Amino acid sequence: MCRWLTYCGDPIYLDTVIFEKTNSLIHQSLNARHSHVTTNGDGFGVGWYAERNTPGVFRDILPAWNDSNLRSITHQIRSGLFFAHVRASTGTATSRANCHPFHHGKWLFMHNGQVGGYASVRRRLEARVADRYYTHRLGTTDSELIFYLMLSEGLDRDPIGALTRALAHVDEAMRAQSVSEPLRFTAVFSDGHHIYSVRHASDDRPPSLFWREQGQERLVVSEPLDDEGGGWQEVPAGHVLVTERRGGMEMLPLALPAAAAV
Amino acid sequence: MCRWLTYCGDPIYLDTVIFEKTNSLIHQSLNARHSHVTTNGDGFGVGWYAERNTPGVFRDILPAWNDSNLRSITHQIRSGLFFAHVRASTGTATSRANCHPFHHGKWLFMHNGQVGGYASVRRRLEARVADRYYTHRLGTTDSELIFYLMLSEGLDRDPIGALTRALAHVDEAMRAQSVSEPLRFTAVFSDGHHIYSVRHASDDRPPSLFWREQGQERLVVSEPLDDEGGGWQEVPAGHVLVTERRGGMEMLPLALPAAAAV
Amino acid sequence: MCRWLTYCGDPIYLDTVIFEKTNSLIHQSLNARHSHVTTNGDGFGVGWYAERNTPGVFRDILPAWNDSNLRSITHQIRSGLFFAHVRASTGTATSRANCHPFHHGKWLFMHNGQVGGYASVRRRLEARVADRYYTHRLGTTDSELIFYLMLSEGLDRDPIGALTRALAHVDEAMRAQSVSEPLRFTAVFSDGHHIYSVRHASDDRPPSLFWREQGQERLVVSEPLDDEGGGWQEVPAGHVLVTERRGGMEMLPLALPAAAAV
Amino acid sequence: MCRWLTYCGDPIYLDTVIFEKTNSLIHQSLNARHSHVTTNGDGFGVGWYAERNTPGVFRDILPAWNDSNLRSITHQIRSGLFFAHVRASTGTATSRANCHPFHHGKWLFMHNGQVGGYASVRRRLEARVADRYYTHRLGTTDSELIFYLMLSEGLDRDPIGALTRALAHVDEAMRAQSVSEPLRFTAVFSDGHHIYSVRHASDDRPPSLFWREQGQERLVVSEPLDDEGGGWQEVPAGHVLVTERRGGMEMLPLALPAAAAV
Repeated sequence: MCRWLTYCGDPIYLDTVIFEKTNSLIHQSLNARHSHVTTNGDGFGVGWYAERNTPGVFRDILPAWNDSNLRSITHQIRSGLFFAHVRASTGTATSRANCHPFHHGKWLFMHNGQVGGYASVRRRLEARVADRYYTHRLGTTDSELIFYLMLSEGLDRDPIGALTRALAHVDEAMRAQSVSEPLRFTAVFSDGHHIYSVRHASDDRPPSLFWREQGQERLVVSEPLDDEGGGWQEVPAGHVLVTERRGGMEMLPLALPAAAAV
Repeated sequence: MCRWLTYCGDPIYLDTVIFEKTNSLIHQSLNARHSHVTTNGDGFGVGWYAERNTPGVFRDILPAWNDSNLRSITHQIRSGLFFAHVRASTGTATSRANCHPFHHGKWLFMHNGQVGGYASVRRRLEARVADRYYTHRLGTTDSELIFYLMLSEGLDRDPIGALTRALAHVDEAMRAQSVSEPLRFTAVFSDGHHIYSVRHASDDRPPSLFWREQGQERLVVSEPLDDEGGGWQEVPAGHVLVTERRGGMEMLPLALPAAAAV
Repeated sequence: MCRWLTYCGDPIYLDTVIFEKTNSLIHQSLNARHSHVTTNGDGFGVGWYAERNTPGVFRDILPAWNDSNLRSITHQIRSGLFFAHVRASTGTATSRANCHPFHHGKWLFMHNGQVGGYASVRRRLEARVADRYYTHRLGTTDSELIFYLMLSEGLDRDPIGALTRALAHVDEAMRAQSVSEPLRFTAVFSDGHHIYSVRHASDDRPPSLFWREQGQERLVVSEPLDDEGGGWQEVPAGHVLVTERRGGMEMLPLALPAAAAV
Repeated sequence: MCRWLTYCGDPIYLDTVIFEKTNSLIHQSLNARHSHVTTNGDGFGVGWYAERNTPGVFRDILPAWNDSNLRSITHQIRSGLFFAHVRASTGTATSRANCHPFHHGKWLFMHNGQVGGYASVRRRLEARVADRYYTHRLGTTDSELIFYLMLSEGLDRDPIGALTRALAHVDEAMRAQSVSEPLRFTAVFSDGHHIYSVRHASDDRPPSLFWREQGQERLVVSEPLDDEGGGWQEVPAGHVLVTERRGGMEMLPLALPAAAAV
């Protein structure tokens, strides 16, 4: 499992929550507490919204804890909405193209989980990606594929609908191949104005997803960042937490179409 | 354009022809003579047949000329049949998964050229790759894709037929998309016993391909390695040079099926 | 020889001068015009002053022209004073620790040239670095060594004096070892408020150094960036151009102590 | 603490003991049992003696567990005497130049432990390295420094004497700086014919060191490789185990000169 966080609030330097806190993301990457994966040394990435139309992205394949570039960049860059991710590979290669967050236009996307029987459904799902997005697929992961499926399904104009349709396609492809392993999909994506935090699985074990609101600051994380009192709440399975950057938060049930309807 | 060589003959240390000669492959990678690409700094790879059933492969994304690992490994490893490649990207990302030579089972493959309108035909061609090979596609290049097309078309049992059918599929896909850019395909592939050196283009400008036989030593190269007397011969466009590792060499015309027949 | 630029003026996105101009730094790194080194593929670096007390630094060992991180970061970051550097190694290893610009506290430093007979004078010069700086030496280059010599000689309180004394120590060490190769030293360094651009050699061939002022914008470069009209002026050998960030420019002769006085 | 092994015996493919065993070195690098460091993701290296006069070395800064090059190379290369190392940094940078094993001429060297107060004694010790070795120092670690001290003290003609004198110099420098942290030094080095396995500390906690002899096969490891029956013996603190490649083994006390005599 990968570990990650999304920050939304007053602009802060990225290193504040990535490096400095006692149980910061980097600390977690070295020493898992809530999960059973021993290490997250298979690359990292940060994505942030600043003044440009598109977010910045910095990804590399070294362990995050020792990367001098990551340390310097996150010390300099200030953002009111950013993603940070440390990767533990579930089988695909360690390359920059397979590191999260993925980005396209104004969108950032990161994912925890896996598509059961990915090898057997990969091509069927790739066939559903629109041509204009497929040319941007640089890696080989299921995560990037679902992101391009969502874009193909109209992420720009109907984010939750696109998410729902993409997951339905995955479900359909897995059924068509009689895949018995589950789909596990916990993800966060953003267009710079809204943050969509999803927790879903086809079985009863969706990867964990927590959030906390403290004043202006909202954090969405794969695991709680520290033990000081907390205030962490869990996103329930089968739900999407929609956070408006300068507005409210709303918890919606994820309404997947019935299999027959796909 | 990339630069490369294939060696076949008595086992020698790889660095003999990769580093040591005045106009060695590494020297060429720094300073092009016969082509107009200024540098080949986008990764490199070597593949060699030794005593195992499968070839060894070492690829990295640094410029070859400064890589201490490449220098040490090629100083230690001795082989009677090996490939070496330095890459100049034509657009796809610099990652290990996009470096040549590609390998699968007993096969090594490297390629110079490009599929015209690749973005528009990529998916159609990926759909033709057999499932059992597609799961091994790690990168995004047209080169790797043609290699898996060839494997899907029966490379193991009918190498030249598989090559021909793969190229016909590429031609068909390009026609279907009304691609006006040419297919240029100069490649070498081997199963450890035979070396197939192909020079082909849909227009009149196939990338260069030369070979030389000196006693037991055969070299196939993208460009002649030195100017000492030479003895280099050009593989004619539309031909395959088949070299038996411990036998003869044969130049065959490449018989592509007529477009209509595809 | 390496290539680089220093920008000073109204804050701009770094990619404006690094990637976008026709004869931008990256374009130059692929295709030398004014020098005879064929390629600058041995790493790169950028350093920039923003709102923090110390500059940001991003360095990597891949060729700059293909680095997606460099492209994204320089597209996002805006600065009124920054350095960019592409490296062609003169012998030392390709590692991040050997990439320019070097940084310490508020200082950035980059260098073109070499210390003649470096291997024979390295230790004598390292012995002159103050303890508190020596612990920060991460690499093995002559460039980094001169930077720490300058810091040891009081760069913070007397920049030009520290530069002069450091060069005198180098000269002295080379004489003591009867080194016949020249010292060539063209460098730019800054504390975020002043930029010091130095051109010096012990023979008559100091590496090139140009500058241009257009309105608020000042550029200092190893080679002119484009051919549109120009306005480039050469820093004369044996001189330092001192640029006040929000003030004037002054050309000072570099007064090295006589050898006997060292 | 780093983890490593040295193999001596009939030539075997390197991957046999590096990847294949249940509790292989790579498995250990992911999941520590006997130590409290959580991960060894800060680079790796292998060194091997084959037919050349000097050993081959392959080092990289990625986590070993995911490196396709390491997997392929160790699958192809067969050796009767080789080193393998996975690194957990104790503070110095992650770069190839800081990865073990270090090599010079016929020698390989790898080390576990650290020089107490390294920053304060580094220069005094570097001053003791002979000029002809110092030019080869590529990194900044205490490990590489001790290796070059040993070479300077005559490793070629008197290995154990050179080791002893080098450790005495370290001890002396630490005393001169009144360093209170201990010297911990567990190391293995070889000239291709003899293997010297040392366990030493200035306090009572030298890093662990085990060995096993099974028929022709001798292994020296930082931690036992598996639990099947075992046969592992510990090298006592303050001892050197000398293994003749095609001969016997001898356990010698490490006779450090008295501090006063240094």
